[in-house]
Amino acid sequence: MRASRYLIATLKETPADAEIISHQLMLRAGLTRKLAAGLYTWLPMGLRVLRKVERIVREEMDRSGAQEVLMPAVQPAELWQESGRWEQYGGELLRLNDRHGRDFCFGPTHEEVITDLVRNELKSYKELPANFYQIQTKFRDERRPRFGVMRAREFLMKDAYSFHITPESLDETYQVMHRTYCAIFDRLGLDYRPVQADSGSIGGSSSHEFHVLASSGEDDIVFSTGSNYAANIEKAEAVAPAGDRPAPGADMTEVATPEQRTIDAVAQFLSLAPSQTVKTLIVKAEATEEGEDGGLVALVLRGDHTLNEIKAENLPGVASPLTMASDEEIEQAVGCKAGSIGPVKLELPVIVDRSAAHLADFVCGANREGFHLTGVNWERDLPLPRVEDLRNVEEGDPSPDGQGTLEIRRGIEVGHIFKLGNKYSQAMDATVLDENGKKAVLEMGCYGIGVSRIVAAAIEQNHDDRGIIWPEAIAPFEVAIVTLNAHKSPAVMEAAETLYDQLRQAGYDVLLDDRNERPGVKFADMELTGIPHRFVVSDRGLAAGTLEYKGRRDADKQDLNIEEALPFLANAAPRNSH
Amino acid sequence: MRASRYLIATLKETPADAEIISHQLMLRAGLTRKLAAGLYTWLPMGLRVLRKVERIVREEMDRSGAQEVLMPAVQPAELWQESGRWEQYGGELLRLNDRHGRDFCFGPTHEEVITDLVRNELKSYKELPANFYQIQTKFRDERRPRFGVMRAREFLMKDAYSFHITPESLDETYQVMHRTYCAIFDRLGLDYRPVQADSGSIGGSSSHEFHVLASSGEDDIVFSTGSNYAANIEKAEAVAPAGDRPAPGADMTEVATPEQRTIDAVAQFLSLAPSQTVKTLIVKAEATEEGEDGGLVALVLRGDHTLNEIKAENLPGVASPLTMASDEEIEQAVGCKAGSIGPVKLELPVIVDRSAAHLADFVCGANREGFHLTGVNWERDLPLPRVEDLRNVEEGDPSPDGQGTLEIRRGIEVGHIFKLGNKYSQAMDATVLDENGKKAVLEMGCYGIGVSRIVAAAIEQNHDDRGIIWPEAIAPFEVAIVTLNAHKSPAVMEAAETLYDQLRQAGYDVLLDDRNERPGVKFADMELTGIPHRFVVSDRGLAAGTLEYKGRRDADKQDLNIEEALPFLANAAPRNSH
Repeated sequence: MRASRYLIATLKETPADAEIISHQLMLRAGLTRKLAAGLYTWLPMGLRVLRKVERIVREEMDRSGAQEVLMPAVQPAELWQESGRWEQYGGELLRLNDRHGRDFCFGPTHEEVITDLVRNELKSYKELPANFYQIQTKFRDERRPRFGVMRAREFLMKDAYSFHITPESLDETYQVMHRTYCAIFDRLGLDYRPVQADSGSIGGSSSHEFHVLASSGEDDIVFSTGSNYAANIEKAEAVAPAGDRPAPGADMTEVATPEQRTIDAVAQFLSLAPSQTVKTLIVKAEATEEGEDGGLVALVLRGDHTLNEIKAENLPGVASPLTMASDEEIEQAVGCKAGSIGPVKLELPVIVDRSAAHLADFVCGANREGFHLTGVNWERDLPLPRVEDLRNVEEGDPSPDGQGTLEIRRGIEVGHIFKLGNKYSQAMDATVLDENGKKAVLEMGCYGIGVSRIVAAAIEQNHDDRGIIWPEAIAPFEVAIVTLNAHKSPAVMEAAETLYDQLRQAGYDVLLDDRNERPGVKFADMELTGIPHRFVVSDRGLAAGTLEYKGRRDADKQDLNIEEALPFLANAAPRNSH
Repeated sequence: MRASRYLIATLKETPADAEIISHQLMLRAGLTRKLAAGLYTWLPMGLRVLRKVERIVREEMDRSGAQEVLMPAVQPAELWQESGRWEQYGGELLRLNDRHGRDFCFGPTHEEVITDLVRNELKSYKELPANFYQIQTKFRDERRPRFGVMRAREFLMKDAYSFHITPESLDETYQVMHRTYCAIFDRLGLDYRPVQADSGSIGGSSSHEFHVLASSGEDDIVFSTGSNYAANIEKAEAVAPAGDRPAPGADMTEVATPEQRTIDAVAQFLSLAPSQTVKTLIVKAEATEEGEDGGLVALVLRGDHTLNEIKAENLPGVASPLTMASDEEIEQAVGCKAGSIGPVKLELPVIVDRSAAHLADFVCGANREGFHLTGVNWERDLPLPRVEDLRNVEEGDPSPDGQGTLEIRRGIEVGHIFKLGNKYSQAMDATVLDENGKKAVLEMGCYGIGVSRIVAAAIEQNHDDRGIIWPEAIAPFEVAIVTLNAHKSPAVMEAAETLYDQLRQAGYDVLLDDRNERPGVKFADMELTGIPHRFVVSDRGLAAGTLEYKGRRDADKQDLNIEEALPFLANAAPRNSH
């Protein structure tokens, strides 16, 4: 491609409304432009990256035996009513009416459509397992779209859905997809981790997320130093402290703690570590089976620990989604404000975290405004309540598999695989005949990859202060040839064209920067857009029979004899490496 | 691909609601399935065809120098308000609201979005010309979607938009696009014609449609026997008859024509040819500049000719879209019913077609219920009114370029190229600085191809009573290998696998039909799905060292020595033919 005939829409200034580095660099490098909130146009340079990601995803899905289909973006409400999601799905579902007033949505996902297709087309267990995927534009009407394509409303997604006659068959395909996702992210050249994920709300039995590691990631992901254990912090189990709970050593005493409303304030006031205190959070209980208000529940954690909301809302008896009680509800139920609550003589159901349940001589609120209790002990001063895993793990916690301790890093979720079981097939009566000629409800898995999100995640992971540093496999162009003074030097243009032809014939995606711009502008653009390899053709070099080469990650440039350029590149970035 | 692991969703019965052959065959061959009115899922076999069409379109667009982008499907209303189309566009525009109640549409086309992009990104004439395209899912909320993907609501389209500083530059790119479209349809292997098209309503200055010829086509397209002239009948000029109008020979006489309400009835009653009569149609006149009702206009044609509505509504003074006057309006204005109207003493503006203006001694309504006038002559019995080209051409008419006569065939429109001029750039203030540093409004062209529609059009043109006959370039698979009795004969399976590997390595898309089905079922499926080349591997053949070959268009099958299979195919369907 010749830059003079190509839209190089680089910006010098960082757009003010771009909060994260990938959003800033995608705008500055001219990869995307905002049309409206959460809606982005992919410019030529950005679309090249997107298509390369798409291609790798498609090739590996095909290799896995999955079959590509393309379902409509617009879906009729009837199917969503059948699965029950027309009502359940919140404001993110973009509902619309056609000219005849019928209800449709712009699909954020396609479980209903594929289940409808499969129940119509597949009749026998002999046709299973089957795994169908598509790469398609989806819409999720985010309340607050932000971070560019990282959390856009319209986005490109690969979604796959597998169907099975047995859970064992689902498990096999699930493993194939796990391996396929690893192959995809390996080929993309990204540093990623598959981690165990919560599957509570979708109701499946197993789930893994694939995260691109980046310090700007929104998710905390947890690894063991001593094993392969890895999980989203939402899911990572906080094991009970080792050994027995220490014996009581102090008497329970009520102390005045005026104006001390936070754990840190109380701990400091009493000259104790926060880990010697407990905090008591009041949340809504699960509604009764008749659908009536279930009242409130108290959750007790060690003062230095944080509540894991996902774990809490997955517990029987706790409302999902997790809903904190209001100040009024707390005062009415307990008789004091939130800062003075404690589990002693509390007239609410109580659930205590494993670590808090291991404390002796701890401090808690006295359920009396401005007072706390010290020297409190379970089973002496109050019964030990229901004990559960309620908290987020912390760095240094023991790994739940017993090997090593936990580390926490930030990740960007770019893939998610799920065993759905029969959630959709049951609701939509998707069955086939089994070996005995009987109707069997299908087992189902689903497997998503955020194709457009990967582009942003790759940048979050790979950039420096000069711009993007693309992994070779998804760079918009692999090689840039920058001409210096070409508009006055036919020799430079001729040498550049020769190299351009040579590299293209060898199979490289080459951008020939033949623009009539100052060298500094061209160098800056090629670095900003992150092209992995750069050759510079100049009169000075030609006089010495050399080209200048610089890799995007290199600190220094080097001179190569002209005829060395291709073999040098073939060594640095071999063709047919996949 | 192994058929045993692939969704071969063929149907024996023709679905009742499929009206045209391509819709029937796409369902029967398992290419698509209907999700809802005008919404189709592409099954694996169909998607392979769609992707091959898409790929050819992309490659040729890239070769033309156009730059691929991807704009959002969902577009904000503000841009459509700016161009004026938010109000003008009818019920086909799928309007929707996001969660905040803002107005959007699911884009049926992208003139506004690309014009907005270009006015923001391009600043100087030096960056022009530029031609941007995308291949994208679009939505047109057809009142009555039908004919499967031929006229679906959601469809895949290639749309391109070019920008220029001068009309000459637009003309150059227009010609490049014309050549590119020819290259695309050549590669697709379709019998097609570029034809002149009406561009009145979009207001551009020039327009060509690309039609796939098929007897089931919805459009009449017109060719000259003696030149390259080709046009949509909407556009094809009906030239004035040669020579002078004959001199009057009869007196004008009023005759009673009781109950004779049609041209044919009147002509028969008077023992005349319909070509000796004229018919007078009353339509609405153009609204005044102040927007007031412009009244009515009479259009006069020869009795045997048909009105060309596009030509009529493009005329100054005639309402667009063309609107026939109601019976009440006619009676009120003329004093008789529609069947008795004529131009003599008619108190309305009259426009007469060129052929009707050439008549002498003609018959027309007397503007008196149940009476006609015979022997009427222009300029003797009434003034010659305004003469225009009002009618559709007919087979045998002289070609408007003076060379040969016209033939009419049916076509399916699959592409359309347009000079838009400055319609959008003016309305949206899209300018760049010209050579003199002055703001210049951009010239614009647009170029569409109905990617999904091509799949249906290819079938309309290429099928027989056994199913689809794909052009080689877009067949889902190029070669089928059918095994007979393979589940009992390891030798058959082994020979089939060997051939399968051999053909794939030679670069062919091969479907190995290894299903445990009767031979008749397999043969029927391979013919229904239209795979161009078929090999049959059987025990009987292997005993003789042969395979059976049959081309999809062949009447007879033939036996080939096993080792001849690849060279034979290489000759019949050479690789790298593009």
